[in-house]
Amino acid sequence: MEIIEQLNWRYATKAMNGTRIPKEKIDRILEAARLAPTSNGLQPFEIIAISNPDLKEKIRPAAFNQQQITGCSHLLVFAAWDKYTPERIDGFIEHTAAERGGDRERLESYRQSLMDKFGSMDAADSYAHAARQAYLSLGVTVVAAAVEGVDNTPMEGFDPDQLDAILGLRERGLRTAVIIALGYRDAEKDWLVNLKKVRKHKAQFITELN
Amino acid sequence: MEIIEQLNWRYATKAMNGTRIPKEKIDRILEAARLAPTSNGLQPFEIIAISNPDLKEKIRPAAFNQQQITGCSHLLVFAAWDKYTPERIDGFIEHTAAERGGDRERLESYRQSLMDKFGSMDAADSYAHAARQAYLSLGVTVVAAAVEGVDNTPMEGFDPDQLDAILGLRERGLRTAVIIALGYRDAEKDWLVNLKKVRKHKAQFITELN
Repeated sequence: MEIIEQLNWRYATKAMNGTRIPKEKIDRILEAARLAPTSNGLQPFEIIAISNPDLKEKIRPAAFNQQQITGCSHLLVFAAWDKYTPERIDGFIEHTAAERGGDRERLESYRQSLMDKFGSMDAADSYAHAARQAYLSLGVTVVAAAVEGVDNTPMEGFDPDQLDAILGLRERGLRTAVIIALGYRDAEKDWLVNLKKVRKHKAQFITELN
Repeated sequence: MEIIEQLNWRYATKAMNGTRIPKEKIDRILEAARLAPTSNGLQPFEIIAISNPDLKEKIRPAAFNQQQITGCSHLLVFAAWDKYTPERIDGFIEHTAAERGGDRERLESYRQSLMDKFGSMDAADSYAHAARQAYLSLGVTVVAAAVEGVDNTPMEGFDPDQLDAILGLRERGLRTAVIIALGYRDAEKDWLVNLKKVRKHKAQFITELN
């Protein structure tokens, strides 16, 4: 399977060479991220896709000065909802109604069930839940990029408060959950490129109960 | 791109028909999950892959009696580390040394940096971080399954305490983070199969800063 080949090919690229990802490739990668499933279909996060060089320069110090931030082609910021709110749930229901049409009564009872489930979550649980959905989409993004031959480095090494401030996310009720650098490896400058990929052996990682 | 086609084909299958996934396909799906990147490469979770019918029957009530639990071919339980511990970090370092060989001194300083970073996390933050890594791998699993033509339903609707007890996870320092049913749709019995997939429009979901 091509996916396995490409997951073996990819690695957490530490140095990227600045080459720009062709538009049709980045569009397909973002489309895959958009199609990722999420809890109840709420998609409780957004993606900020940054290729602007000045903005990447500005972000780099907030990410411990890592080279990929400016060496990448596109930096994707997965910005999760800070909280499930009635407005956001209503927006989701309205959008679903517009897309699918159909039974308003059924949608109203669905709205109520979402409010019961998410409306009572405190902000910390709410954000934690939204962030997990973003990570699922991040996993989809990793595969989509790898299959396009695009190197990709998911990164947690950044200061979320600084990044939120640079991008004005808090005002929009969003918080940076995780970021990923997409681009092309600079093999000569990357200490990691030739090191063997290390994963737990299958027997340590998977228990099959047949 | 085949991935996009297949992500459009998949949906949160609500009724599965019991057909067993061929071994080579389930093996490739699990291999993709294993290859998923994780923070620092720690892979702080395991996968329990359940095809045993009696066990699936036993789990079903702990998952609000949802049909996919028994109708699926394989139920994957993503069980995250309950806490980062010195033993687990040591195990990771030993495994890395065995796989890559190389500089013990460098690995020792890496071990220390991981201990500084993860050793001080409390159990709640520790588990939350591990669970997010599991969701990233879940995203990889969704794509790998879809590309194999295997239906897949990530599920959060279960009682984690009950599931942990059935599988004896807590004794092993693990907690169920999320599960996914893999199998084949039973189109005649699935109310969702013909409903339009709803996602936010690209303009609502992605902000491009070029």
